Amino acid sequence: MRILFLGDVMGRSGRRAVTDHLPDLKRRYQFDFVIINGENASHGRGLTEKHFECLLEAGADMVTLGDHAFDQRETLGVIARDNRLLRPINMSDAAPGRGAMLYDAPNGQRVLVVNALGRVFMNPIDDPFYAVEKAIADCPLGDVADAVIVDFHAEATSEMQAMGQFLDGRASLVVGTHTHIPTADHRVLKGGTGLMSDAGMCGDYDSVIGMDAEEPVNRFVTGMTRERFTPADVDPSVCGVVIETDNRTGLCTSIQPLRVGGSIGQALPEFD
Amino acid sequence: MRILFLGDVMGRSGRRAVTDHLPDLKRRYQFDFVIINGENASHGRGLTEKHFECLLEAGADMVTLGDHAFDQRETLGVIARDNRLLRPINMSDAAPGRGAMLYDAPNGQRVLVVNALGRVFMNPIDDPFYAVEKAIADCPLGDVADAVIVDFHAEATSEMQAMGQFLDGRASLVVGTHTHIPTADHRVLKGGTGLMSDAGMCGDYDSVIGMDAEEPVNRFVTGMTRERFTPADVDPSVCGVVIETDNRTGLCTSIQPLRVGGSIGQALPEFD
Amino acid sequence: MRILFLGDVMGRSGRRAVTDHLPDLKRRYQFDFVIINGENASHGRGLTEKHFECLLEAGADMVTLGDHAFDQRETLGVIARDNRLLRPINMSDAAPGRGAMLYDAPNGQRVLVVNALGRVFMNPIDDPFYAVEKAIADCPLGDVADAVIVDFHAEATSEMQAMGQFLDGRASLVVGTHTHIPTADHRVLKGGTGLMSDAGMCGDYDSVIGMDAEEPVNRFVTGMTRERFTPADVDPSVCGVVIETDNRTGLCTSIQPLRVGGSIGQALPEFD
Amino acid sequence: MRILFLGDVMGRSGRRAVTDHLPDLKRRYQFDFVIINGENASHGRGLTEKHFECLLEAGADMVTLGDHAFDQRETLGVIARDNRLLRPINMSDAAPGRGAMLYDAPNGQRVLVVNALGRVFMNPIDDPFYAVEKAIADCPLGDVADAVIVDFHAEATSEMQAMGQFLDGRASLVVGTHTHIPTADHRVLKGGTGLMSDAGMCGDYDSVIGMDAEEPVNRFVTGMTRERFTPADVDPSVCGVVIETDNRTGLCTSIQPLRVGGSIGQALPEFD
Ligand SMILES: [Fe+2]
Ligand SMILES: [Fe+2]
Ligand SMILES: [Fe+2]
Ligand SMILES: [Fe+2]
Ligand SMILES: [Fe+2]
Ligand SMILES: [Fe+2]
Ligand SMILES: [Fe+2]
Ligand SMILES: [Fe+2]
Repeated sequence: MRILFLGDVMGRSGRRAVTDHLPDLKRRYQFDFVIINGENASHGRGLTEKHFECLLEAGADMVTLGDHAFDQRETLGVIARDNRLLRPINMSDAAPGRGAMLYDAPNGQRVLVVNALGRVFMNPIDDPFYAVEKAIADCPLGDVADAVIVDFHAEATSEMQAMGQFLDGRASLVVGTHTHIPTADHRVLKGGTGLMSDAGMCGDYDSVIGMDAEEPVNRFVTGMTRERFTPADVDPSVCGVVIETDNRTGLCTSIQPLRVGGSIGQALPEFD
Repeated sequence: MRILFLGDVMGRSGRRAVTDHLPDLKRRYQFDFVIINGENASHGRGLTEKHFECLLEAGADMVTLGDHAFDQRETLGVIARDNRLLRPINMSDAAPGRGAMLYDAPNGQRVLVVNALGRVFMNPIDDPFYAVEKAIADCPLGDVADAVIVDFHAEATSEMQAMGQFLDGRASLVVGTHTHIPTADHRVLKGGTGLMSDAGMCGDYDSVIGMDAEEPVNRFVTGMTRERFTPADVDPSVCGVVIETDNRTGLCTSIQPLRVGGSIGQALPEFD
Repeated sequence: MRILFLGDVMGRSGRRAVTDHLPDLKRRYQFDFVIINGENASHGRGLTEKHFECLLEAGADMVTLGDHAFDQRETLGVIARDNRLLRPINMSDAAPGRGAMLYDAPNGQRVLVVNALGRVFMNPIDDPFYAVEKAIADCPLGDVADAVIVDFHAEATSEMQAMGQFLDGRASLVVGTHTHIPTADHRVLKGGTGLMSDAGMCGDYDSVIGMDAEEPVNRFVTGMTRERFTPADVDPSVCGVVIETDNRTGLCTSIQPLRVGGSIGQALPEFD
Repeated sequence: MRILFLGDVMGRSGRRAVTDHLPDLKRRYQFDFVIINGENASHGRGLTEKHFECLLEAGADMVTLGDHAFDQRETLGVIARDNRLLRPINMSDAAPGRGAMLYDAPNGQRVLVVNALGRVFMNPIDDPFYAVEKAIADCPLGDVADAVIVDFHAEATSEMQAMGQFLDGRASLVVGTHTHIPTADHRVLKGGTGLMSDAGMCGDYDSVIGMDAEEPVNRFVTGMTRERFTPADVDPSVCGVVIETDNRTGLCTSIQPLRVGGSIGQALPEFD
């Protein structure tokens, strides 16, 4: 399978970048399945129903979330109704929705997607290692699932790398989200799992992780709040990662970054 | 000028990667100045005098540090004697050594290097924005300094990006260290400052941020300590960033990643 | 001198407790100077001008703040105009107002009050030890000041105790605020400084640190937000500490807790 | 029942205070059950077998731990063999031992003790609210258990208070440990649960939370490490809390602090 994963969509400019580029990218590269992290799609804070639909219309097969999952209260209802939306699996049982789901891709193959939250430098939450392992054990790769994609929404590179090593051989891709900066460490681990510490954000990089730079810089420099954060909205990029999987084992055979548009260095995948 | 910056050297394998590759790289690309972050060069914890000299012999013009600056007590003496070693500038006055220095490059040009520690998700320390701004004000770019390089040793991408935006037009390069994962967001900001969130580590990437994966994974999965961390030592990479500066303004004219050896995707700079 | 210090006033119930009890307490115990921490007086978030005046009218000679200093924007103007209001001294130079002030008590004696923020488990900020030491050096106890009172607004008991030990012999009282729970460790250190880790809050203790318990418990148990926090408002206490100082040295000769009203154990000072 | 709970025993001086005072206290007050938190009894770091036995000989019926539970490797074996030792219940399944236990008191009554770790400002760990609730549901108060004592080893007063409110009516006592400072907020909540935010430490209070003050103050002031921490060992106190329970319901009928010896204010319980 050929799978595209796009990182945190940041506000209007992030949505615009996805809408502008994803249809062309799908046509050109014939992705079998497209996943988008949408936790910041609505003004940087959560995901409204309208913006969820906007991501689906642009070409996402499903959407993942993160620590901002329920910043918009209407998401509570959307996720209860529509299983194309996942929230982190290690949230409490009181959270609506689910954190893992086996999807039927348009080509008939089955893709297990798991969304999980890290704990290092983040709010207290239950063990993501345990929760992700359990979800994968229920739909083993190469057996029940043709591909297993883990969106690990984490701050610390140590926790991210440990998740990748922990799942090596059991997932097709372990990809980080949340830092809003794409990493250049994409590689296939020894056991066949593709790993990339962060997919990067879909948004305007002439900013502070997607927010117009002025107020974040002001707060760092003065310690004082002057105004609200506003997503930067000039020249956005689409950022993510593309993997190919072995149809028999489901393991990763290639992993390549994708960065299109905006002020950041461009990267397009190449296939044989 | 053409300047090479290499990220956190991690233990023996990191030192080996530098020793194996840096002389060739210097010969091939004719760097005018080479900076290495050495905070983890000695078993992952600090920098002994012997390993400091090892980095200089391999080709570094000077060495920066980070939160592990004084993990090895002998570093207190080394830094007091040898100004080719910098520790973060926003440490207390009780720390020996200095955090900024104007160096004479071998070609006669002057390079201001500033080393600073971030505060978000890190130990309490004084304001890095204030300290770095002051150091640069003392040696302005394009006036006193032909290049200004800021090694911002930080955890959070927000603080890193804010530092870059804050210094845009006043530094040649703002580069992050500490996360041990190279980012793919290298770019020249509007004011002419090169920015890259993390240079990545010099060490073995088949690991958890340079440490053999077994014990970190064990700790994340069980919460229990079984043994000490040991730097991974099989197949290390050299990781960093290369910039070119305008000889008149000192601003960045190109920024390119460098990744050589090991299990990570390779990247070599290209010059006209 | 006989000085009363009251901890964080929490919303309407906290203000009510102060208004109800402070005038009687002043009459009964003849305090020479009264300090109140008002950082939560307005709905738990900051201090409006109206509520600042309410605390003064109830009997405060001046008011200190904390991490919530500027939650209400109007406080920026109030503090610029009225030096009976202090904000933490280790905030940035961009913050209006001041963090230390030598007051003339009604009886003609001079009281230096210093307000500072801790850093452990709190937001990044500059070194409180350095800032407080400098403020006291400018108005030494027993020389310029008849009493030196330090309101150290801190989370960690380690940092709090260290501040007390650091200032032992140089301050009349080092008292903590911010945890909203009174401690029972009030004592006079060897050098003559009174120390109490936290003065406790003025507010309703049948709560979670002053907030009606339902929503905080809900968030801890489910990880989900249901509604806003609301200050508990049934049966509030006034909480603080009383010291007596030596008129010659300014050092502490006695330190006693004060807890009046509400659901918490009562404590009234006794004097010879 | 009349139950004594003593907070974190800190090094040799803490053990000495317990050994010196506990036998007398037991004789004088006829406690039916004695619990001691021993997480720092061995040089401030964990609990050796020898020191565990020392606490039992001094009069503890059982011993609880905290974040330092396994600082001494031999504790792994001790806890596997001896169920008079509990570690936090919300540690991973990989931890030996148990976090809750129904004890037969010498008088034949049954006491459920639960030890749990907080998460706010502490290392990532699973949900203590869920784990404690489950343990109590297995041995309900007034039904299976004559008393339920929860040692909640937590940093943040908010989490501590929330645990008390959450368990109100289901536990005899919810008492905090870990901050090493006794609080003065002991009270019986509306549902009949005794609550005290921190029992305080058994150790020398002329210190920084039990450590000789010099090095902690040095580290806060300079940010530099000069030497190891050493437990203060001059004049230690025993610190804790005493409750009486209703023999039918198991709920708390009185809660009183106990502070004996050392530089801290003394407090002895009084019974009708
Ligand atoms: Fe995000
Ligand atoms: Fe996030
Ligand atoms: Fe570091
Ligand atoms: Fe490092
Ligand atoms: Fe407060
Ligand atoms: Fe506060
Ligand atoms: Fe402790
Ligand atoms: Fe502890």
